[in-house]
Amino acid sequence: MTDTVLDDRVAALHRRYGARAAQRAAEHIGPEVWNEVLALQLAHRSVRTFLPEPVSEEHLRAIVAAASSAASSSNLQLWSVIAVTDRERLARIAPLAGDQAVVRNAPLLLVWVADLARAARLAQQHGKDLVNAGYVESALLGVVDAALAAQNATLAAESLGLGAVYIGALRNHPRELAAELNLPDHSFAVVGQVVGHPDPDAAPEVKPRLGQDVVLHREQYAAENTDDGVAAYEAEIAEFYREQGLAESWVARVLSRFSAPGAFGSREALRDALQERGFRLD
Amino acid sequence: MTDTVLDDRVAALHRRYGARAAQRAAEHIGPEVWNEVLALQLAHRSVRTFLPEPVSEEHLRAIVAAASSAASSSNLQLWSVIAVTDRERLARIAPLAGDQAVVRNAPLLLVWVADLARAARLAQQHGKDLVNAGYVESALLGVVDAALAAQNATLAAESLGLGAVYIGALRNHPRELAAELNLPDHSFAVVGQVVGHPDPDAAPEVKPRLGQDVVLHREQYAAENTDDGVAAYEAEIAEFYREQGLAESWVARVLSRFSAPGAFGSREALRDALQERGFRLD
Repeated sequence: MTDTVLDDRVAALHRRYGARAAQRAAEHIGPEVWNEVLALQLAHRSVRTFLPEPVSEEHLRAIVAAASSAASSSNLQLWSVIAVTDRERLARIAPLAGDQAVVRNAPLLLVWVADLARAARLAQQHGKDLVNAGYVESALLGVVDAALAAQNATLAAESLGLGAVYIGALRNHPRELAAELNLPDHSFAVVGQVVGHPDPDAAPEVKPRLGQDVVLHREQYAAENTDDGVAAYEAEIAEFYREQGLAESWVARVLSRFSAPGAFGSREALRDALQERGFRLD
Repeated sequence: MTDTVLDDRVAALHRRYGARAAQRAAEHIGPEVWNEVLALQLAHRSVRTFLPEPVSEEHLRAIVAAASSAASSSNLQLWSVIAVTDRERLARIAPLAGDQAVVRNAPLLLVWVADLARAARLAQQHGKDLVNAGYVESALLGVVDAALAAQNATLAAESLGLGAVYIGALRNHPRELAAELNLPDHSFAVVGQVVGHPDPDAAPEVKPRLGQDVVLHREQYAAENTDDGVAAYEAEIAEFYREQGLAESWVARVLSRFSAPGAFGSREALRDALQERGFRLD
C-alpha cells in the first residue's frame, strides 16, 4: 500500500460519486480504511479498446484461479468459463452479440456459464434423474455462482494491468451461441467478458454511480428517501457525459429500457431459449 | 506487495486446489503474475463465527463504495443493499433463513436486492408503464447486477480484515422477508451476506475447488474432458473433510441436491413469490 494510493482516496471517491456525493462519502471513508484493493475496485471502468497483444496463459490461469475462489452456494460450483481466442469463432460470435467490434477484435472472450450440465452428467453416470433442475431456484444458483466468479475474474484481471468489459449482448441469441460453444443441456451463457491489454490512447473515464443515499438502505427499504439522491445523480451523470460531448439522461435511459415496447429486442425470447436448454423456470 | 505474500503463492494454490491440482496450477501461475489482490482472493473462506463487535460505519461505507464500483449492465444499476443490525429484526429474519445462528447473531446482515423498483418509481413519476419488467431478461439484469456488487463487497470486506458468508437461505421465504424489509414491488432479495470481525478461535480452512481442467474450457465446452478432473476433486475434497473428521462426498452432495425430490424445500415455490413481486419471468 503506497502513499500514492493513499493520496488517491479523495480523487477516487470524486470520480466514482461526482463532486457532491464524493464529499459526503469521504467524510465516512477515511484514510484509515483505505487500501490497495479498494483503490483498485473504485478505479474500475469498462475497457472496450485493447492492444492487439494476447492475454497470456499465465494471466488467464490467474484469472480463473480468482474466479474459482469466489463463494459458491453449498460448494456446488455451478459455473464454467469458456475461453475463446480463435479469430474465426470470434467473427461468428460477434454478430450474435450485437455485432460489436470489441467482441470481433477480442484478445480474449470469456463466456461465463451457469452450469448444471456437470450435475446432469453426474446424474446420468449414477443412474439418477435431475428432478430439481427445472426450478427457478436452480437457474438462480447457477447465475449467481457464475456472476460471483466473473466479478472475481474482473478484479483479478485489473490487478494484473488488464482491462475488461462485460458483454450482456451474449444473451441476444442463446440458441446460436450454445451451438457455437457446444454448450450441453442444462447450461447457458449468463454473460460474456472481453479481456485484454487496454489501449492507453483510449482510456475510458470512471463512470459516476448513484450515491449511497440511493443504494444503501438501513433496516428497511425506504424508497421515499431516494428521490433527492436520484435527482442529484441525474445532474451528476449529465455533467459527466457533457464533458464527453454527449447529451445523456440516466432517467431517460432507465425509462426507455423498461417502458419502451421492444427495447429488449431478441432478449424478449430468453425464457423460451432457457426452457429449451433445460431451465424450465418452474 | 510484500515478500510474505509472494512466498505464499504456492501455499495459496495448494489450499485452493489441493496437492495435485495445485502443482499443475503453480506451473502456470508463476511468481511474476502473483500479487496482493490475487492472494486475498485465493485466501477467501466463508466465515460463520464472528466476534460481537459491530462493523463500523466507515467499513460499511467502504464496502458499499466497492459494491457501487462493480460493472452494471448499461449503467442501469439495478440493485440495492439493505444493512440490518437491529437485533430484534435479525431475530425475526433468522427463522426465515433456515434458523441459522450466524444470521441471528450477525454483527451486520447485508441483503442484496435485485432492484427494478427504482425504475418502477421513475416510471410512475413520469407517467410511464414498466412494460418490460416481466421478461426473464429483466430479472436476470437485476440478479447479475446485485451479484457483481455483492462480490465486490465481499472482497472489500476481506481487504479490511473482516469476514463474510453468503446466506442463500434468505430465499426460503421471500414473501415474509419482503414484508420484514419493506421491499417494494419489482424488487427481491437475491442473497444475504453476514459480515463481521472473524472469531480468530474459529477460523475456517480454505475449501478446495474443482481444478481448472474442469471449469475452464477452450473454444468450446468439452464435457468429456472433465471426468478425470471431477474424480480427482472428489478424492481431494474427501481428504479435506476427513481432516475435519467428516465423511463427505462432493458427488453425493450434488446428486442429492438435484436428484432428490424435495431437496429445495420451500424454494420450490420461488417462482410464485417472484411473480407476485412483479417478476413474471415471461
